[in-house]
Amino acid sequence: MKILILNGPSLNLLGTREPEIYGDVRFESYLEVLREEFSQHEIAYFQSNHEGELIDAVQRGGVDAIVLNAGGYTHTSVALRDAVASVQTPVVEVHISNPQAREEFRHVSLLAGVVRGSIAGFGLDSYKIAILAL
Amino acid sequence: MKILILNGPSLNLLGTREPEIYGDVRFESYLEVLREEFSQHEIAYFQSNHEGELIDAVQRGGVDAIVLNAGGYTHTSVALRDAVASVQTPVVEVHISNPQAREEFRHVSLLAGVVRGSIAGFGLDSYKIAILAL
Amino acid sequence: MKILILNGPSLNLLGTREPEIYGDVRFESYLEVLREEFSQHEIAYFQSNHEGELIDAVQRGGVDAIVLNAGGYTHTSVALRDAVASVQTPVVEVHISNPQAREEFRHVSLLAGVVRGSIAGFGLDSYKIAILAL
Amino acid sequence: MKILILNGPSLNLLGTREPEIYGDVRFESYLEVLREEFSQHEIAYFQSNHEGELIDAVQRGGVDAIVLNAGGYTHTSVALRDAVASVQTPVVEVHISNPQAREEFRHVSLLAGVVRGSIAGFGLDSYKIAILAL
Amino acid sequence: MKILILNGPSLNLLGTREPEIYGDVRFESYLEVLREEFSQHEIAYFQSNHEGELIDAVQRGGVDAIVLNAGGYTHTSVALRDAVASVQTPVVEVHISNPQAREEFRHVSLLAGVVRGSIAGFGLDSYKIAILAL
Amino acid sequence: MKILILNGPSLNLLGTREPEIYGDVRFESYLEVLREEFSQHEIAYFQSNHEGELIDAVQRGGVDAIVLNAGGYTHTSVALRDAVASVQTPVVEVHISNPQAREEFRHVSLLAGVVRGSIAGFGLDSYKIAILAL
Amino acid sequence: MKILILNGPSLNLLGTREPEIYGDVRFESYLEVLREEFSQHEIAYFQSNHEGELIDAVQRGGVDAIVLNAGGYTHTSVALRDAVASVQTPVVEVHISNPQAREEFRHVSLLAGVVRGSIAGFGLDSYKIAILAL
Amino acid sequence: MKILILNGPSLNLLGTREPEIYGDVRFESYLEVLREEFSQHEIAYFQSNHEGELIDAVQRGGVDAIVLNAGGYTHTSVALRDAVASVQTPVVEVHISNPQAREEFRHVSLLAGVVRGSIAGFGLDSYKIAILAL
Amino acid sequence: MKILILNGPSLNLLGTREPEIYGDVRFESYLEVLREEFSQHEIAYFQSNHEGELIDAVQRGGVDAIVLNAGGYTHTSVALRDAVASVQTPVVEVHISNPQAREEFRHVSLLAGVVRGSIAGFGLDSYKIAILAL
Amino acid sequence: MKILILNGPSLNLLGTREPEIYGDVRFESYLEVLREEFSQHEIAYFQSNHEGELIDAVQRGGVDAIVLNAGGYTHTSVALRDAVASVQTPVVEVHISNPQAREEFRHVSLLAGVVRGSIAGFGLDSYKIAILAL
Amino acid sequence: MKILILNGPSLNLLGTREPEIYGDVRFESYLEVLREEFSQHEIAYFQSNHEGELIDAVQRGGVDAIVLNAGGYTHTSVALRDAVASVQTPVVEVHISNPQAREEFRHVSLLAGVVRGSIAGFGLDSYKIAILAL
Amino acid sequence: MKILILNGPSLNLLGTREPEIYGDVRFESYLEVLREEFSQHEIAYFQSNHEGELIDAVQRGGVDAIVLNAGGYTHTSVALRDAVASVQTPVVEVHISNPQAREEFRHVSLLAGVVRGSIAGFGLDSYKIAILAL
Repeated sequence: MKILILNGPSLNLLGTREPEIYGDVRFESYLEVLREEFSQHEIAYFQSNHEGELIDAVQRGGVDAIVLNAGGYTHTSVALRDAVASVQTPVVEVHISNPQAREEFRHVSLLAGVVRGSIAGFGLDSYKIAILAL
Repeated sequence: MKILILNGPSLNLLGTREPEIYGDVRFESYLEVLREEFSQHEIAYFQSNHEGELIDAVQRGGVDAIVLNAGGYTHTSVALRDAVASVQTPVVEVHISNPQAREEFRHVSLLAGVVRGSIAGFGLDSYKIAILAL
Repeated sequence: MKILILNGPSLNLLGTREPEIYGDVRFESYLEVLREEFSQHEIAYFQSNHEGELIDAVQRGGVDAIVLNAGGYTHTSVALRDAVASVQTPVVEVHISNPQAREEFRHVSLLAGVVRGSIAGFGLDSYKIAILAL
Repeated sequence: MKILILNGPSLNLLGTREPEIYGDVRFESYLEVLREEFSQHEIAYFQSNHEGELIDAVQRGGVDAIVLNAGGYTHTSVALRDAVASVQTPVVEVHISNPQAREEFRHVSLLAGVVRGSIAGFGLDSYKIAILAL
Repeated sequence: MKILILNGPSLNLLGTREPEIYGDVRFESYLEVLREEFSQHEIAYFQSNHEGELIDAVQRGGVDAIVLNAGGYTHTSVALRDAVASVQTPVVEVHISNPQAREEFRHVSLLAGVVRGSIAGFGLDSYKIAILAL
Repeated sequence: MKILILNGPSLNLLGTREPEIYGDVRFESYLEVLREEFSQHEIAYFQSNHEGELIDAVQRGGVDAIVLNAGGYTHTSVALRDAVASVQTPVVEVHISNPQAREEFRHVSLLAGVVRGSIAGFGLDSYKIAILAL
Repeated sequence: MKILILNGPSLNLLGTREPEIYGDVRFESYLEVLREEFSQHEIAYFQSNHEGELIDAVQRGGVDAIVLNAGGYTHTSVALRDAVASVQTPVVEVHISNPQAREEFRHVSLLAGVVRGSIAGFGLDSYKIAILAL
Repeated sequence: MKILILNGPSLNLLGTREPEIYGDVRFESYLEVLREEFSQHEIAYFQSNHEGELIDAVQRGGVDAIVLNAGGYTHTSVALRDAVASVQTPVVEVHISNPQAREEFRHVSLLAGVVRGSIAGFGLDSYKIAILAL
Repeated sequence: MKILILNGPSLNLLGTREPEIYGDVRFESYLEVLREEFSQHEIAYFQSNHEGELIDAVQRGGVDAIVLNAGGYTHTSVALRDAVASVQTPVVEVHISNPQAREEFRHVSLLAGVVRGSIAGFGLDSYKIAILAL
Repeated sequence: MKILILNGPSLNLLGTREPEIYGDVRFESYLEVLREEFSQHEIAYFQSNHEGELIDAVQRGGVDAIVLNAGGYTHTSVALRDAVASVQTPVVEVHISNPQAREEFRHVSLLAGVVRGSIAGFGLDSYKIAILAL
Repeated sequence: MKILILNGPSLNLLGTREPEIYGDVRFESYLEVLREEFSQHEIAYFQSNHEGELIDAVQRGGVDAIVLNAGGYTHTSVALRDAVASVQTPVVEVHISNPQAREEFRHVSLLAGVVRGSIAGFGLDSYKIAILAL
Repeated sequence: MKILILNGPSLNLLGTREPEIYGDVRFESYLEVLREEFSQHEIAYFQSNHEGELIDAVQRGGVDAIVLNAGGYTHTSVALRDAVASVQTPVVEVHISNPQAREEFRHVSLLAGVVRGSIAGFGLDSYKIAILAL
C-alpha cells in the first residue's frame, strides 16, 4: 500500500517550533521510524506551506491513501476541503495536539465533513495511528 | 493492560439503530473480535444511558485506560468533562461517525479539552484504533 | 393499542408546582380521567427525573406508541433525541405550556426533528390530544 | 361551534407542491372529509397568499375559533402575530410538517407566544387534531 | 399643509386591542381631536393590514408629509423601507409604545435609516408630536 | 417562449428612485427595448408592491419562465420562496445592483436556494442577461 | 413647569463638531431661542462629559421633567439607565441625528426601556419637540 | 434548622481533583468542621453524579434549606432549574471557584434565576458562608 | 480589620428606588445595623455615581478589604475591573438582587474574574454575608 | 475583446469531481465550445489551485475583462478581493452551482462587493452568460 | 511641538500593577526619560481614572497632538470616541501590551476608527514610538 | 541590523491601487527613501501575493527582524500566524490604513497575538515607525 503523508504549513519546523505544544522531535527523524515500523508500506512524504501545493498534492493521486495534517489550513481552507471531496483517494485527518483544546479559531475543521476519519491529540503518534487505521 | 470501553446512551442499540450511520454489527459481537485480537489486554465493557453512571464509571478507576464513546453526552455534559479532568486514568475519546460532519449541535466536543486524544469517523474500527493508540 | 405516557423531570409535582403555569391538577388524577376516556387503549405511565431512565424507557419498547413530555430535557438532551431516533416506536412530543412563549433556553426542541409530531400549549389536554392524534 | 380554517401562502397548492414533504392530497378533498367527520361544527375555509388578507381574516371575527396554518408567514410576520394577539378569538397554530426539523429559518414561530396551542408534524391530520383540541 | 397619517396592521383595533399597552381610545375618535387641533392642516388618514397597500400609499404622493406608524412591518419590511427611500415626501416614524422596551424582535427599526425623524413612547400623543415636528 | 418579468416593490419607481444606485431609465422604456431585442419571445410584465400578488403571479403559471426581481422581499419572504419551490416554472433571480455589496440585511437571499440561477449587479442589463440565460 | 435640558458628552461642541452630522449652531444660541419660545416654562441647562455627573443631575430632582440627550452614554451606560429608572421625574430621550441610521454600536439605546418617550433625527428641533411633548 | 448540603458531580473527588483549582481538603473532613461549627443546626449531606438523583433530592424535602453546588449541571440542566423552581424549600447556590472566571461554558448559571442567593469563589468557605447566609 | 463598603451608582437611592426589587430600607440605616453587629471591625463607607471615583477609591487603599457593589458598572466597566486587578486589597463583589435573574445585559460580570468572591441575591444581607466571608 | 477565464481550486477536476453537483463535462471540452461560439473574442484560460497565482493573474492585466470562478477562495480570500479592487479590468464573478443553496460557509462572497456583476447557478452555462454579459 | 500624553484608568499604577503584563517601571520615571530624549518638544502629561476627565482633556485643546492610552475605556467608551472625532487635534492611540492578544472584551477598539494611527504591544516604548510617529 | 520588509498581496500595486486609501507613492520609491534614512541598517524587501511564500519568508530567517504587512492575509491566515509563532525572529505588524476603521472582516488580526507589536494607520510612514520601533 502506498501512503502519502501530507504536512501543511510550519510542520517543517517540528522539533524546534513551540516544543511545549508540538514536542522536540523533527518530523524527518520520526518519518524514518515510521518507515521502518511499516516497512510493508511505501510511505511518501510531502510538506508545503502553500495551500495551493497541498491541493495539487491531494489531486495528484498515485497513492492509495493520504494522511493529511493541514495545520492552519484545517480551519480556513474551503478550497482544500473541496479538493479532498473531489478525489477518490481516502484521506485521514491528523493533528498532533487536539485543536478543540486550543484557541477558538482552531475549533472548526472544514475537513472533517469530507475525510474518512480524524485522529487528534496523540502527539506525533497520531500519524502512526492513522497508518494503523488505514 | 486493563482497558475499559465505556459506551454512552443508545450505543447498546448498535446494529439496529440507524444502520446507514452506525453500521449493522452489534457491539457485543464486535467486542468479541476486539478481545480476541487484543488477547494480551483485559478489556472490560460498560454501557449506560445514564450520564451519572458514566461519571461513576470514569471515577471508579481500577483500569489503566478508558476508551470513551460518550454519544450524545459528548456535546452537552460539562459534568462528564469534569469527571474526566478529575481522574488520572488516561481517556481516549472515540466516535463511530464524524460528529463534525453531522448536525451543528454535534460539532462541539466538551471532552476534547481534557482527553488524551480523539478518534472519529472510522466506524466501529474507531475502537480498535483507540486501543492501538493506547 | 398500548400507549406509554412518559413524563420527564418535575412533572411528578404537577398540581403543586408553579400552578399559574402548569395548573392545579395532579397528573395521577388526570391519568384516571384519560384511562376512562380511552378505555379501548392500555395506557402505561412512567415518570422519572433521570435522563438515563427516560432513555431506558424509550428503548424498552413493548408499546405501540409513546407520548413523551421530556420537560427540561427537551431543550438539552442530545442523548434523548438519539434514543428516540434509534427506535421504531412512534413518539409524540407534548408540552403543557408553549415553550416558545417562555424563556429563550426553552425555544429549541432537540426532539422535534425525530418525533412523529408535536403538541404544545393546551394544558393537560395536550396529552389527550396526543392520544387522539395517535 | 363555528371554526375558520385559515391557510397561508402556497397551501392552495397542497397535493401538487413538493409531495415528499406535504403529501399528495389536495386540501379541498381533505376539507370535505373534515366537514363530514365534524358535521356538528360549521367549518369555514379561507386561503390567501397575502399577509394582509390573513390579518384581515383574523380580525374579521364571527367565528368561535381559528385553525391557522400561516405557512411561511409563521416565521417572519410580526404583523400577523400582533393581529392574533389583538383579538379574543382563540387561535390554534398548525403545521403539516415539523418546522423545527427543517431549515433553520423555519425554527422560530412568531405566533407561538400568542396562540392557544400548537400542533405540528402530523401531516394533514394536524388540522383534524386541532379541531379535536378545540 | 396636507399630511397623511398612515397606520399599519392592527392599528384599526386601537382601543380594543391590548389596552394595557395601547390605551383604550379608538383611533377614529383621536383623529377628530387631531383635526380640530390642527385645523390649519388637512389631515388624510389611511390604515391597512397589507404591506403592499402601505407601500402603494407611500408611493402615491399628493401629500406634503407622511406620519407613518408601520406597526409590525417596522421590524421586518425591507420593501417598505425601500419605498420610503424612493420618494421625496418627508416621512416621520411614530410608535405608540417604545419598541425598544418590548420584545427583542421589535428592537430593530428598518425604517429609522430613511425617515426624517422618529417619535416613540408617548402613547397616542406620538402622532400629535409628529405633526408638531412637521 | 413566453417569459414573465416579475418586478417587486418600488421597482415601478425605477428611473426616479435613488438614481445613483438604480440608474435613471424607467423600466417601461427599458421593457420596449427588451421586447424589440427579443422579438422571438413573448415578454409579459407584472409589477406589484404586494408580497401576496407576487406569490399569486408565481403560482398562476401560463408562462415558460419567470425573471424575478423580488426587491426587498428577496431578503425577508419565506412565503415567496415557498411559492417558487412549489411550481414547475423555472425562475431566474435578478438584481440591478449587487445586494452583497450593500447593507447587511440585503446579504441573504431566501430565493437563492430554490431558483434556477441568479444574476446580480449588471444594472438593468441583468434582465437582458437573464433572458439570454433562459 | 421647570424643565432640565441635560446634555451628555461632546454636546458642548455642537456647532463646531462634525457639522455635516450635527449642524453648525452652538447649543447656547439655540437655548436662547428655546427659552424665548417657551417663556412660560423655566428651562434649566446642564452639560457634562462625565457619566457620573449626568447620573447626579438625574437624581438631584427639583425639576418637573428632564430632556436628556445622553450622547455616547445612551448606548453603553447601564448606570445611567438605572438612575433614570430610580427617579420619579419624567425623562424624555432626544437625539439630534437618528442613531439607528449610524454605526451599529449606536443602534441599542439602554435608556429606551425606562424613559417616557424618545425623539430622534429632527436635528436641534428634537429638543423643541421634546418640550412640546411634555 | 435542618440543612441539606447537596453536592453535584465529581465533588466527591474534592481534595484529589485538580487541587490548584479546588484545594486539597476532602469534603468529608470539611463537613465535620462545619457540623462542629454549626452544632445548633442539623446538617445532612448528599453527593451524586446523577442529575436525576440531584433532582430527586431537591424534591424530597424534609429539610428547611438546601445548599446546592450543582457542579457541571449548573450550566446545562434546565431540569434541575425546574426542580428548584418547583419546591418551596429555599435553595442557596454555591461554587468553590468563581465560574465567571473560568471557561466560557461555565459563565451561564441556569440556577441563578430561581435560587434564593448565590455565593461563589471563596473556596470551601463558600459552604460556610451559605449556612451563615441562611 | 478595616473594611470599605463601596457602593456604585444609584445605590444612594436605596429605600426609595424600585422598592419591589431593592427593598425599602435606606442604606444609611442598614449601615448602622452593620456597624453595631460588627463592632470589632471598622467599616468605612463611600458611594459614588462616578466610575472614576470608584476606581480612585479602589486604588486609594488604606483598608484591609473592600466590599464592592458596583451597580450598573459591574456589567460595562473594563476600567473598574482593571483597577481591582491592579491592587492587592481583597475585593468581594456583592449584589442585592441576582443579576443573572434580570435583563440579559446584567448577566455578564466583568468583575467576577478578578474578585476574591461573589455574593448575590440575598437582599441587603448580601453585605452582611460579605463581611462574614471576610 | 480579449477575455480571461480564470478558474480557481479544483475546477481542473470538472467532469470527474462530484458530478451530481458540477456536471460531467470537462472544462477543456466546454472551453472549445465557448471559443467557437464567441469566435469574435479572444478567450484566454488559466486555472490554478493557488490563491497567490489567481491574485497574480488578476493583477497581470493585458485583457479587457476577466470571468472569475474563484471556487473555495470566493468565501475566504480577503487577498483576492483586494486584488480585484486594485485593478481597472472589469471582473465578472461566476459560480456553476448557487453557493447560497449549499453549506453555510459558502453563503458569503467576499468578491461580490468589488466585482462588476455576479452570475450563479446555471451550471457551465454561467460562463457563457458571463461572456454575453460582457 | 506641544504634545499631551493622556493616560487612562489605572495607568497611574504602572510599575506596581500586574508587572508581568505591564513591566515594573513607573510612568513618572519613564516620562523623564521621554522628556530628555525629546527635549525639542514640550510634553504635557495627564492621567485620570475618570472617563469624563479624559473627554474634557481631549476637548481642552492647546496642544499640537495627543498620545492617548485610554486603558479600559478603549473598549467601552463611545463617548470618548465621539470626543476624539469632535476635535481637530491629531490623536495617536497607544497600548503597552497588545489588546488583541488578551481577553476577548479587549479586542475591539472604539477609538481605532477616529484616531490618526495606533501603536500597540511595544511595552512603554509604545509612547516613544508614538512621539516619533508624530 | 538586518531587517526584512515583507509585503503581502496587492501591496506591489501601491501607488496605483485605490489611492484614496493607500496614497499614490509606489513602494519601491518609498523603499529608497527608507534605505537612505536608515543607512546604518540593511533593509531587505520581499513582496508576494502567495500565502505560502510569505510563510516561507518568515521561516527562512537570516534577518534580525521582520516588518510584516500581511495585507488581506492578516485577517484570514491561521497558517501565517503559526509561522510567526514558530520562529525566534521578532516580527512587527504594520498596516498603512487602520483596519479597525474599515470593513468588519478586517477587524480581527490573527497576527496580533504572536507579533512583537503592531503599528497601524500612519500611511506609508507605518513602515518607518516600525523600523524606529525596532
